[in-house]
Amino acid sequence: MLVVITYDVSTMSNEGQRRLRQISKICQNYGQRVQHSVFECIVDATEYAVLKRKLVDAMDQEEDSLRFYQLGNHYKNKVEHVGIKKSLDMEGLLIL
Amino acid sequence: MLVVITYDVSTMSNEGQRRLRQISKICQNYGQRVQHSVFECIVDATEYAVLKRKLVDAMDQEEDSLRFYQLGNHYKNKVEHVGIKKSLDMEGLLIL
Repeated sequence: MLVVITYDVSTMSNEGQRRLRQISKICQNYGQRVQHSVFECIVDATEYAVLKRKLVDAMDQEEDSLRFYQLGNHYKNKVEHVGIKKSLDMEGLLIL
Repeated sequence: MLVVITYDVSTMSNEGQRRLRQISKICQNYGQRVQHSVFECIVDATEYAVLKRKLVDAMDQEEDSLRFYQLGNHYKNKVEHVGIKKSLDMEGLLIL
């Protein structure tokens, strides 16, 4: 299934920048970065649980905000893009 | 249905900051801002078309990136949040 992960962190601090890099690195093992702080990951239920645990461990819960959106397996028509593209096409499906 | 809108803009420039404010203002007529550049809007098909048109008009397609994710009507179990909350509860459903 596709899971969209959005991560809000203050990158004004070096620590915030470091956490964003770490979150990005974890997410990119499962998918791609489509915006500065938005990641699209293709996972099954087990991988999703592991991914979530890693991200929660990497974030600072007192400072950051992490949101997960489950789009399911039939997501092709549920995602639209307008404007510039920064994304890296990993599955050949996500770039619209 | 719930539509999640993510907006990537360089806020280093005054023009980028102005566009983010404008995008935020448009989205907040239909829902709430849940992260710095993530909005959750509750719309029907007609409202969604209008909202999308307004946002595309407000953005700079050469500079910014706008993504839309349709979560459908049964979205309560598809959204998860960890960490700090900046969101304003408009429907009493979206804050998890």
